[in-house]
Amino acid sequence: METVSTARAFGGTQGVYRHRSSATGTNMTFSVFVPDHAPGARLPVVWYLSGLTCTHANVTEKGEYRRACAEHGLIFVAPDTSPRGESVPDDPAGAYDFGLGAGFYVDATEAPFDRHYRMWSYVTEELPALIGEAFPADMGRQSIMGHSMGGHGALTIGLRHPERFSAVSAFAPIVAPGRVPWGEKALTGYLGQDRAKWRRHDAVALIEDGARVPELLVDQGEADNFLREQLRPEWLAAACSAAGIDLTLRMQPGYDHSYYFISTFMADHLAWHAARLQ
Amino acid sequence: METVSTARAFGGTQGVYRHRSSATGTNMTFSVFVPDHAPGARLPVVWYLSGLTCTHANVTEKGEYRRACAEHGLIFVAPDTSPRGESVPDDPAGAYDFGLGAGFYVDATEAPFDRHYRMWSYVTEELPALIGEAFPADMGRQSIMGHSMGGHGALTIGLRHPERFSAVSAFAPIVAPGRVPWGEKALTGYLGQDRAKWRRHDAVALIEDGARVPELLVDQGEADNFLREQLRPEWLAAACSAAGIDLTLRMQPGYDHSYYFISTFMADHLAWHAARLQ
Repeated sequence: METVSTARAFGGTQGVYRHRSSATGTNMTFSVFVPDHAPGARLPVVWYLSGLTCTHANVTEKGEYRRACAEHGLIFVAPDTSPRGESVPDDPAGAYDFGLGAGFYVDATEAPFDRHYRMWSYVTEELPALIGEAFPADMGRQSIMGHSMGGHGALTIGLRHPERFSAVSAFAPIVAPGRVPWGEKALTGYLGQDRAKWRRHDAVALIEDGARVPELLVDQGEADNFLREQLRPEWLAAACSAAGIDLTLRMQPGYDHSYYFISTFMADHLAWHAARLQ
Repeated sequence: METVSTARAFGGTQGVYRHRSSATGTNMTFSVFVPDHAPGARLPVVWYLSGLTCTHANVTEKGEYRRACAEHGLIFVAPDTSPRGESVPDDPAGAYDFGLGAGFYVDATEAPFDRHYRMWSYVTEELPALIGEAFPADMGRQSIMGHSMGGHGALTIGLRHPERFSAVSAFAPIVAPGRVPWGEKALTGYLGQDRAKWRRHDAVALIEDGARVPELLVDQGEADNFLREQLRPEWLAAACSAAGIDLTLRMQPGYDHSYYFISTFMADHLAWHAARLQ
């Protein structure tokens, strides 16, 4: 692991790191914020998965999470959203919603994407192992959140690992990629035409198929341009209601899909996570 | 004035606007955050002047000022750092520290810069008039802050308009441009060889020449790469001490020159301003 940069911020250290990933077969860059702590202490870890077109940098620069993480003593990890590099295939038309910056947190099975697009394994196995080794992280206390495509990632990873994550939340998540245009395109491209294989990467389908967490927190802007076609939080609400999952879904009047929205509610989410990680 | 974008954030509106400036003879872009407020209410205005290479966007995205501005009821205005456009001359070698992104908050007198580089008039006269007209701003309650080159701007403008600004503060300011490389290059290029003319654009010289404000707040990172050659806060401390200005100079161990530093202490500065604006 190579240190790209570190800077002191809010009484902690904001770092950016790069390593060779065996999961993706590429170099991967990620950011980690570590609050100051007592020697030998290990802190709980909050995972933040980003949305379409993002790298680790978007939330690192615009997410406004450091003050709350320092206050609550939380390590904050932000991975990239796809493999990158000359050998990595992209959307044939260069579209923003597939390929580079759009890994959708799955292990692709379809050529030519199956070689590098293994973001599920990267985010759930390889990067956690590295974080546990290289940072003062208590891997027995983890939680996960994400935005949009990364909200999809947080919900699906959280639902499939309820023993690992003490809290799961999302900002404007794609809750049912198997039933909306962004997700149908991505899951077809990465996993193929058989929709039965998509269900393990669809939060609503996972809940319908029996996956359970005790509670979820979701914030959604009412002025979000993607709300009606791509996000559909009402489907998550219906699935949680049927399954007895305690979903707090906060519709936020006037807010859009941007980091202006995310940063506004970031401290609320971190306080909610912190209460469940102690 | 044209609205480039608006977004809801932290219970207010973050906007970006563009207008034709008569001071600079170019289009100018700036950002304004307006917290929600009672109908007809007018809120105090905090000016934020940015540093070398920046536009309005850097602090707008990375400054983490909106939570505190909403809490204290402060309008936050972030102008650009120079005129821009095809007709605007730049540094002959394209250097980052002169020309585009480096207006140094002066009205240039030297050709070819005297035609467009009129940032002093723009920031002290034209833009305040526009803000007072187009936003719910109480122009009887203003304060000013800035970073690096913008800290220089905030200090010099604040010292020359003590009646207008209730509070003046800075992050890692250039306190004596007439005596450091960045400033010597810029003031020579914009104002010419006569160093006597530079003194009205040099905070330490202004204080030596009799300018007074009751107090100043300055934060400075001790790991700032520009500290020893370009910033020299000890010169400001000496001038304030001799002049009886109550300077609070906080040296921050480990902090660099970046927005990680600025964002960490932004809320402190805004609370300090708010207390003096009420």
